[in-house]
Amino acid sequence: MKILDNITSPEDVKKLSQNELPILAEEIREKIIETAVKGGGHLASNLGIADATVALHRVFSCPEDSIIFDVGHQAYAHKLLTGRAADFHTLRQAGGISGFTNRGESKYDAVTAGHSGTSISTAVGIAEANRLAGRDNWAVAVIGDGSFTNGMVFEALEQLSGSDLKLVILLNDNEMSISKNVGGFSRYLSTIRTSERYYTFKIRLNKLLRSIPLIGEAVAVGAYRVKEFLKRLFGAETWFESLGLEYIGPLDGNDIAKTVSALEEAKIMNCPVIVHIKTKKGLGFAPAEEHPEKYHSTSAFVLEPEAAEKAEKKRTFTDELSDFLCEKGEADPALVGITAAMTDGCGFGKFSKKYPERFFDVGIAEEHAVTTAAGLAIGGKSEGLTPVLVLYSTFSQRVFDQLWHDVALQKDVHVVLMLSHAGIVPNDGVTHQGIYDVPLLTAIPGTTVYSPDDFDAFRKSVNEAYGGKGLTVVRYPKAGEAKYDVDFTDHGTWKVSGCGKTVVVTYGRVAENVAAAIRKAGIDCTLAVLRQIHPLPDDREFMTLINSSDRVLFIEESVRSGGIGEHLASADWVEKKVHVKAIDDPFIPHGDMEYLIRYAGLDEESIAGWIKE
Amino acid sequence: MKILDNITSPEDVKKLSQNELPILAEEIREKIIETAVKGGGHLASNLGIADATVALHRVFSCPEDSIIFDVGHQAYAHKLLTGRAADFHTLRQAGGISGFTNRGESKYDAVTAGHSGTSISTAVGIAEANRLAGRDNWAVAVIGDGSFTNGMVFEALEQLSGSDLKLVILLNDNEMSISKNVGGFSRYLSTIRTSERYYTFKIRLNKLLRSIPLIGEAVAVGAYRVKEFLKRLFGAETWFESLGLEYIGPLDGNDIAKTVSALEEAKIMNCPVIVHIKTKKGLGFAPAEEHPEKYHSTSAFVLEPEAAEKAEKKRTFTDELSDFLCEKGEADPALVGITAAMTDGCGFGKFSKKYPERFFDVGIAEEHAVTTAAGLAIGGKSEGLTPVLVLYSTFSQRVFDQLWHDVALQKDVHVVLMLSHAGIVPNDGVTHQGIYDVPLLTAIPGTTVYSPDDFDAFRKSVNEAYGGKGLTVVRYPKAGEAKYDVDFTDHGTWKVSGCGKTVVVTYGRVAENVAAAIRKAGIDCTLAVLRQIHPLPDDREFMTLINSSDRVLFIEESVRSGGIGEHLASADWVEKKVHVKAIDDPFIPHGDMEYLIRYAGLDEESIAGWIKE
Repeated sequence: MKILDNITSPEDVKKLSQNELPILAEEIREKIIETAVKGGGHLASNLGIADATVALHRVFSCPEDSIIFDVGHQAYAHKLLTGRAADFHTLRQAGGISGFTNRGESKYDAVTAGHSGTSISTAVGIAEANRLAGRDNWAVAVIGDGSFTNGMVFEALEQLSGSDLKLVILLNDNEMSISKNVGGFSRYLSTIRTSERYYTFKIRLNKLLRSIPLIGEAVAVGAYRVKEFLKRLFGAETWFESLGLEYIGPLDGNDIAKTVSALEEAKIMNCPVIVHIKTKKGLGFAPAEEHPEKYHSTSAFVLEPEAAEKAEKKRTFTDELSDFLCEKGEADPALVGITAAMTDGCGFGKFSKKYPERFFDVGIAEEHAVTTAAGLAIGGKSEGLTPVLVLYSTFSQRVFDQLWHDVALQKDVHVVLMLSHAGIVPNDGVTHQGIYDVPLLTAIPGTTVYSPDDFDAFRKSVNEAYGGKGLTVVRYPKAGEAKYDVDFTDHGTWKVSGCGKTVVVTYGRVAENVAAAIRKAGIDCTLAVLRQIHPLPDDREFMTLINSSDRVLFIEESVRSGGIGEHLASADWVEKKVHVKAIDDPFIPHGDMEYLIRYAGLDEESIAGWIKE
Repeated sequence: MKILDNITSPEDVKKLSQNELPILAEEIREKIIETAVKGGGHLASNLGIADATVALHRVFSCPEDSIIFDVGHQAYAHKLLTGRAADFHTLRQAGGISGFTNRGESKYDAVTAGHSGTSISTAVGIAEANRLAGRDNWAVAVIGDGSFTNGMVFEALEQLSGSDLKLVILLNDNEMSISKNVGGFSRYLSTIRTSERYYTFKIRLNKLLRSIPLIGEAVAVGAYRVKEFLKRLFGAETWFESLGLEYIGPLDGNDIAKTVSALEEAKIMNCPVIVHIKTKKGLGFAPAEEHPEKYHSTSAFVLEPEAAEKAEKKRTFTDELSDFLCEKGEADPALVGITAAMTDGCGFGKFSKKYPERFFDVGIAEEHAVTTAAGLAIGGKSEGLTPVLVLYSTFSQRVFDQLWHDVALQKDVHVVLMLSHAGIVPNDGVTHQGIYDVPLLTAIPGTTVYSPDDFDAFRKSVNEAYGGKGLTVVRYPKAGEAKYDVDFTDHGTWKVSGCGKTVVVTYGRVAENVAAAIRKAGIDCTLAVLRQIHPLPDDREFMTLINSSDRVLFIEESVRSGGIGEHLASADWVEKKVHVKAIDDPFIPHGDMEYLIRYAGLDEESIAGWIKE
């Protein structure tokens, strides 16, 4: 019988002996590897943080204390310790355990998450609520060094500075160095400072000194200066402390005993504390330890990753983009590439090696990425560069104002925005669906938006976007291209097939399902597939097609509100009522692609039913 | 003849003698006061930064060097020095000089701006473009300490850290202290460090030491450590330097000679440098020196501000909100207030004094404001608080993702968002129009949006929003309430007047113009005014009204794309074609309210014409 089998709630972690804790962490790692081998997941970071998670549940009492995992994808150990071990084999499967924290899944998940940099802000709010209610509970934000590149973190830290909130930031440092001043003395000092004796001594000393009337304050300040002097002298002054926050670390976050004692120390302080741990990404799984980036997020893989690699080699839109970037990058030295911490995922792998000078990874800082792209395009007083910024569709939700204010409003600034993972995205779940970018982008004046269905349309779109003006956007799915059994007549920005009096308009990959559904419905239809979705085609052929029809149906893989269907329905020149089928439940969960398309009502069957009705 | 009269381009500033510079700055201040007395404007900050602006144009050469003013509202002196003195009396008037930097207005304005925290990101892009082109030009971001609370600043600083870009950040510190370590020694050290001799000495020393083979590196590192030690010892280690950025300051930014020498020093460094100046807000105008917050942005005022104050006492929606906050705040201890650096502008003045514990001003950090509001609502493990977050409509463009991810996605989290300055906003211009919030908010699932037309509707809406679920939003204009000559029958979420077969639907303040336009058009219409704009009313009366009409017209003070008109046009139950009149040129410039309403085609006359046609 394993220790993990007896853990039904975090309270059980507190009942274990010290010696059992590392064994429990090992069992957790085994379980995570075993599950990810079958169904994929965020492997490396979850292996690295298993020990610290055990420590967290040893020291804090969920759900009275709130643990907020930034992004929420490193909470597998947390899930295993909070009553979800038995269901854990369903990870990321339809109806199963989410790959991220989920408020609906468990009372131990403080928030549903998936985007980066929000945990400290949430924790500040929870801690303020605890303070106002006079509760003795803690809010704990668990955040990786990667998320620290996001601006929201600093906005939250500023509010914390000098406050007395019961809040711990567990900084999980598994890659890059946040602090530059980490030397031998610093480590030495950190061992002193994380011992309770030192801290309570300091508090007592300050209290004692302050209690001496009149001169007390001055002496306390003097003692403070001495402490400051010592800290500076030994190089322990950290970036966080200069912001006025308490700091413990760095310490080995894969050592449970050390982490437990640091967290207990933090609780004594009764104010916001940053506990800085260093952890090994991928710990316990040799391939992931060696190549943590490869195992950051994986599909299901067999234990021989080479076989998995081969099996996955199906051409994607991102492969197409990668080729475009290298070819155009060679022809045009004005092309510069920008990504927000997604070099490979966004197709910049080759380009960044070929043209390192012209490539910028700005970290998880989408807002800055857009505005600095605008700056690159403005480019001092000569003709600027042509920035190609690649983001996942869901993360473009962060940058409406920057696209509007720093790009579109300038009027003569040309930025090419490529949105990967547009439409429904498998496995990751609700926070990663690319179904909101259409209303956002089409509300920005002067924007041209392409949503190609296949590689040919993609190549045309990318070239037009690159040669265009203002903000030009190409959005494309994670999946492969659409394939049809029908032939189309090309009209440039759109194409058409059939000649029925029912006109069905659609765009993007889902056009494949629409074409199949029309056949299935057995109704004589004209299918129009848009390549440029905004502005809408305004050629005579398209207008005539719409206005001479008996019925106009519009189908899109996007939320309805502000989508292309609505734009068409209210366009001045359209005389017919346009019936729109879009995604009506906009919180699409996790599952495989087939399941999700059916869930969204965009499978062949559902569309055929809707057309008939 | 004044010196300013002879300044036709920044080159002329370089021709002046040292002694003439302070006189020029005084003349600039006079001109600014004279202009603001007549037409209003951002007075205090523009007076404070006049000297530093003279220094900037003395040291840098625009437009080859790019100066980017953060927010862009402190560029009056810059405008006066770049060929716009003769037209400066038209400041903020229709067709006149913009109150913000504007790329279309002058080649000396690097960007059109109005929102905060973007300047360093833009400067990074421009500096990278200069570097790639091998140009010797500089990018200069001029940014106030207030903007430093915005997360984008940190995203940009992180990218700068350790780079060799030719970029200066002129930190205009006129209020709060950014650095806590400013003492006598620090000031002393800063005077040493801003002298060229010290800096070139340091460079020469390092070069010399490095040139000694093998042991050179080690000795250079040793010298570096000594410098670090001294800096720490004397408290001169700044927050910026711990980020790896060069830093000069703090120095008196109202002393032109000192600022010129600091900027020249920065240029020698050939890498990103922060020049930290302290300036006096409102300098040269006694009332503004005493009450800089009062004169941050003013309407036209006579030199006796009391008279101006009286003249302006017309009741606003913000006054209504202020009363609500105090009353509800007393009845319900769960009400907490949040603002992003707009305590008074957002109606929190009284509430914040009455309930300081329950009020949070988070700085210009809208993203954090939303997410921490969600945290307050989640509130640990008991029932949470009810956060009321007040933003200007235009700044809500920053928070789509936070509203979606941190509020709506949680499903059971209730946040009340109040959007002031919704619709057309006078004077400030294109960056301050509140015409994009409707498509953004209505794309967020589960959101309820109210857009009341008068105070009575506002009070109803605020109470419903406060007692509601999920994300509830009330949007309201800067102006006063709508007034009508017609009577309405109330249907709860909407009201109706008249019984013509042409149905005109609208919402918000513009309903007043629509009612007047219907009379002017002389066509028998039914006027329906929505109070809750999303979701649309779905009662039988409303459906029957629409579907039994001859014509459906929809008029809104919002962009068309994703607006309520589009939602109605494509709603499944609507059988008629809906004709939509919205704002078609979404870049509404500056001017007075009457001019802008006409510009947007939402005046009585234009609407009457559209109804007839």
